[in-house]
Amino acid sequence: MRSDRLGETLLPKKLALPVFASDALSSVAYAPDEILLTLGLAGGTLALTQSWKIALVVVLVMAVVIMSYRQNVHAYPSGGGDYEVASVNLGPRAGLTVASALLVDYVLTVAVSISSGVQNAASAFGFVRGHEAVVGVVVIAVLTAMNLRGVRESGAAFAVPTYLFMAAVIGMALFGFYRRLSGDLPLAESASLTLAPEDGYEQLGGLAMAFLLLRAFSSGCAALTGVEAISNGVPAFQKPKSRNAATTLLLMGTIAVTMLMSMVVLARWTGVHYAEDEATQLLRDGVPVGDTYVQDTVMGQVSKAVFSNFHLGVVLVSIVTGLILVLAANTAFNGFPVLGSILARDGFLPRQLHTRGDRLAFSNGILILAGAAAALVVIFDADVTRLIQLYIVGVFVSFTVSQIGMVRHWNRHLRVEKDPAGRARMMRSRVINAVGATMSGTVLLVVLATKFIHGAGYAIAAMAVLFFLMLGIRRHYDRVRDELTVMEGDTKHQLLPSRVHAIVLVAKIHKPTLRALAYARATRPSILEALTVNVEPEETSALQAEWDRRDIPVPLKALDSPYREITRPVVDYVKSIRTDSPRDLVVVYIPQYVVGHWWEQLLHNQSALRLRTRLLFTPGVMVSSVPWQLASSEGVEDRMDGPVVGDVRRGE
Amino acid sequence: MRSDRLGETLLPKKLALPVFASDALSSVAYAPDEILLTLGLAGGTLALTQSWKIALVVVLVMAVVIMSYRQNVHAYPSGGGDYEVASVNLGPRAGLTVASALLVDYVLTVAVSISSGVQNAASAFGFVRGHEAVVGVVVIAVLTAMNLRGVRESGAAFAVPTYLFMAAVIGMALFGFYRRLSGDLPLAESASLTLAPEDGYEQLGGLAMAFLLLRAFSSGCAALTGVEAISNGVPAFQKPKSRNAATTLLLMGTIAVTMLMSMVVLARWTGVHYAEDEATQLLRDGVPVGDTYVQDTVMGQVSKAVFSNFHLGVVLVSIVTGLILVLAANTAFNGFPVLGSILARDGFLPRQLHTRGDRLAFSNGILILAGAAAALVVIFDADVTRLIQLYIVGVFVSFTVSQIGMVRHWNRHLRVEKDPAGRARMMRSRVINAVGATMSGTVLLVVLATKFIHGAGYAIAAMAVLFFLMLGIRRHYDRVRDELTVMEGDTKHQLLPSRVHAIVLVAKIHKPTLRALAYARATRPSILEALTVNVEPEETSALQAEWDRRDIPVPLKALDSPYREITRPVVDYVKSIRTDSPRDLVVVYIPQYVVGHWWEQLLHNQSALRLRTRLLFTPGVMVSSVPWQLASSEGVEDRMDGPVVGDVRRGE
Repeated sequence: MRSDRLGETLLPKKLALPVFASDALSSVAYAPDEILLTLGLAGGTLALTQSWKIALVVVLVMAVVIMSYRQNVHAYPSGGGDYEVASVNLGPRAGLTVASALLVDYVLTVAVSISSGVQNAASAFGFVRGHEAVVGVVVIAVLTAMNLRGVRESGAAFAVPTYLFMAAVIGMALFGFYRRLSGDLPLAESASLTLAPEDGYEQLGGLAMAFLLLRAFSSGCAALTGVEAISNGVPAFQKPKSRNAATTLLLMGTIAVTMLMSMVVLARWTGVHYAEDEATQLLRDGVPVGDTYVQDTVMGQVSKAVFSNFHLGVVLVSIVTGLILVLAANTAFNGFPVLGSILARDGFLPRQLHTRGDRLAFSNGILILAGAAAALVVIFDADVTRLIQLYIVGVFVSFTVSQIGMVRHWNRHLRVEKDPAGRARMMRSRVINAVGATMSGTVLLVVLATKFIHGAGYAIAAMAVLFFLMLGIRRHYDRVRDELTVMEGDTKHQLLPSRVHAIVLVAKIHKPTLRALAYARATRPSILEALTVNVEPEETSALQAEWDRRDIPVPLKALDSPYREITRPVVDYVKSIRTDSPRDLVVVYIPQYVVGHWWEQLLHNQSALRLRTRLLFTPGVMVSSVPWQLASSEGVEDRMDGPVVGDVRRGE
Repeated sequence: MRSDRLGETLLPKKLALPVFASDALSSVAYAPDEILLTLGLAGGTLALTQSWKIALVVVLVMAVVIMSYRQNVHAYPSGGGDYEVASVNLGPRAGLTVASALLVDYVLTVAVSISSGVQNAASAFGFVRGHEAVVGVVVIAVLTAMNLRGVRESGAAFAVPTYLFMAAVIGMALFGFYRRLSGDLPLAESASLTLAPEDGYEQLGGLAMAFLLLRAFSSGCAALTGVEAISNGVPAFQKPKSRNAATTLLLMGTIAVTMLMSMVVLARWTGVHYAEDEATQLLRDGVPVGDTYVQDTVMGQVSKAVFSNFHLGVVLVSIVTGLILVLAANTAFNGFPVLGSILARDGFLPRQLHTRGDRLAFSNGILILAGAAAALVVIFDADVTRLIQLYIVGVFVSFTVSQIGMVRHWNRHLRVEKDPAGRARMMRSRVINAVGATMSGTVLLVVLATKFIHGAGYAIAAMAVLFFLMLGIRRHYDRVRDELTVMEGDTKHQLLPSRVHAIVLVAKIHKPTLRALAYARATRPSILEALTVNVEPEETSALQAEWDRRDIPVPLKALDSPYREITRPVVDYVKSIRTDSPRDLVVVYIPQYVVGHWWEQLLHNQSALRLRTRLLFTPGVMVSSVPWQLASSEGVEDRMDGPVVGDVRRGE
């Protein structure tokens, strides 16, 4: 079983690429759109002339970031990713900052990918139009259900659609270039329209223009999201892990860059006009096209142009694009709980999120992620453009912090490293990371400056909330730890109670009661008595009679209950024992039904549960549940085990 | 403490009347409206000429019903009410039918009373208009909060508003009669309008007319809701309980009847025109008044006419009416959980609803009631007229069944009763109950016939669902009971395990662990070992080292955990012990933190909890929680106790 798992899950490069790249690659489905429509605010000409330059800058940044992360992969093969790098080199606060950013980003990855996927589907299947938000939520629900059921992601499941997507996009690009060269590349449907500038953007001064270009650029940086995925997944690679991871990273970068540039160039050649507010900005013969006009995604328009003579291609592109976007969203469903468990390990999130091997721990994470993402999709009506505004800031927060951390890392090692060759390598790495830090830092500033009012502010706020929440949790755990530590030489906690006073709670005489009595007797306590609460006198006397008839060798004591309560009389009685002989240990045996369905749980054990809870507050009292397995409970246990999401990227 | 309670809560008649009558009396706030607007469907004249006759019939029915219930009160002083009468005399199915009807009715009592109260408030405070539903939900929320906090209803709290209400309404009536006699009773504002028949009601044939009259009558029967309250509350009365209860019932009936008739007569004298669809039915000079016209409740219009020269009176009436309607709703908040606990006692609802003395049990009931009522208020937009359609059917189902039950009751007793005087009394009672049964049965048929399509159908459906749900729960409990009964002479369940194998789970060495070890050792098991799960090897070896350093006198065993799980390795190990020596008892000691806040609960004990749950499925294993009370847990216990709703009417 275990070895199978290992065999199944350690990934060769050709599987690792699709598993970790889907997020990064999928952004080619919306990044170009964002560049075009932002430039388009100032009218069609700017978009046509500047888009490819903007794209080039984005590509440059991407190259640098990928170079930098190749260093991370080598230096931190453990899979802690940015969080680990930041924590180790810049301290827990920095790590927590990165963590908050990543958590927010996972939510946005789902929201953006799904929204984009839905918009994409709409350009192929008209009936989706107008119901984007609903469809989006449904897709999220399906993903959630799948991940809750614990379907283990298999490399293959990722490989097929991802490679199909690469093939489709690059195939489209090649075919487009070919038609361009052979001079029969048709124009996009929107080419016949003119793109009027948005109000207030008609005459832009140099500064305003620069600002707009920067805004377009930072929108385009959406293409970089998901680049860090591999650095979190090194353990999942086959040996030599770091080398393979680094290579895969490079591969992924190259492909992403190629796709992005091709899309932008094709969009230009086919004269795509893409507007943020199509109804008013797009003019046909000088007249706004109005609300009836439906604006396809750039990918959609380009494919329709390139495959003008081959409609199947259009549908294919749109389908695989939709698929990879869903996969991208799914990576978040895997990453979020994993990061959660790392944070839990460090005491920043509830401990149980760390516990492996049961799905419950991860279910919470999955549900939180899904809920938050669905909320965003509804609030922003599945509008990618508006969601993007929140998106990129988190990515670059973690990029920047982690790159700064890497520089620190190399500084530390350089202090001890003697071997000149090694020093040379470290120097080089340090330069690369330094450049990476500077560049991503700059981009972060640009993003903040250009997008803060457009929504990035919300993302920052969310991060802050998470940051302080996690800090508070950690503080709580520390407080408890201090409260529980035993001073050296302090032995009073090892003192044995003098006697054991055992009490078996009895409601009526049935198998669970008899078992409880037998178990209690087996522990040979100093005192053993059965206890019942006299709620209905006649019932009690009946019980007493049967007790004697069966001559059960344990005395039965009945507590009066003026208000027909059960809990309080028992608690009071136990307390009285404690006060009479404080050094005794009181053990209360409570028979408990083990049932098979949640609704049966509602029908049983409630008063036992309440009693447990109440007794726990009394020191010197121990509560023992004596389980009785009802027939319905059979087989339930097996259903409790099952695969857990994120195994693949954890390399388990 | 206990005696105080008793003193505080056993009710003299003058307090019992307001406590139990608020529901019945409050219906005068909406019953007349329903009669008028139903008749009004056929135009103004019918309403003017027939309303008081309809009211008379309602009064007649009420008299009969009250006479009948005086018999119940004497025969069943235990407070089981209709449910008990039906179960005892007609069997559990009949009882369950009544129970379903009552549960549905409690929900409707809240919905109708609150909605009517809000409509009433609207006629005094204009700003409420248009937000009825919202205001209604808010009021329900407030009531819920109060009842959840466990405010004990005190007789006084009921007495003041109820007596104020009686005083206000009867005072208004007397003043109105006086002005009428002295000939200066002004007309209502709507008197100047004409009331046009609703489409389709212009020319009613004899049959249709009769049907309409019946419909008006069954709407008017809303006045009877809450009459049975006293028969559920006999134990709360001072001795002689039954006599006092019967007298109070009579008193209540007289007052209710007086109020109802006065309202109807005053409405006629002041020429109130009241329409179901005021905008189109009410004409000013032949033209519909339209949506701008706001139609006050009958109570509102009458008070404005009677107190034309004394506006304060109008406000007063409207305020006390609002108050008593809220009180009426509150009675449901007390009755619903009480009935729930009786049903739970009989195994028709989850057992824990029966457990007294902790608020949790009742909280569930309160929340369910509030949720359902709020839903109705929202769905029906706080429209009393539409809610009434669902309301009355439940009342008369329970009236009818319980009266039939009473007849059976007397038959049974007559078989054994010898004393002629006694027989005579029983005969008389039987006649009364027989009449009661026949009459309420007839009304029930009328209600069903006239209202089924208008909404009574939904009520019936809801009752059916509850009926079968409760039947299913009972079946489940019976199945479990059979599964657990020990055959006479079957002693194998008393067999003692041969040895006790104790296992203490250890994560790290702190006070809770040491306490668990001490407790485990105190029980002197045959075998005792400490168990830890090796998730992080270095942590484990550190633990082992400290273990030896502190020379803890218990061997520490470390289980390997390939997947960094905690639960499964332990479960597997325990099972292996069971298989090696099946006759041993395995006791697993789990240290558990006792915390003070729910959110701390989220941060602790989760893996312990999971482990407990898993181990419970293995027979021959007993799980002992060894509590460690964290500082934050202090004082929590006290907060757990508190008064419980419905105490007053249970006479506790």
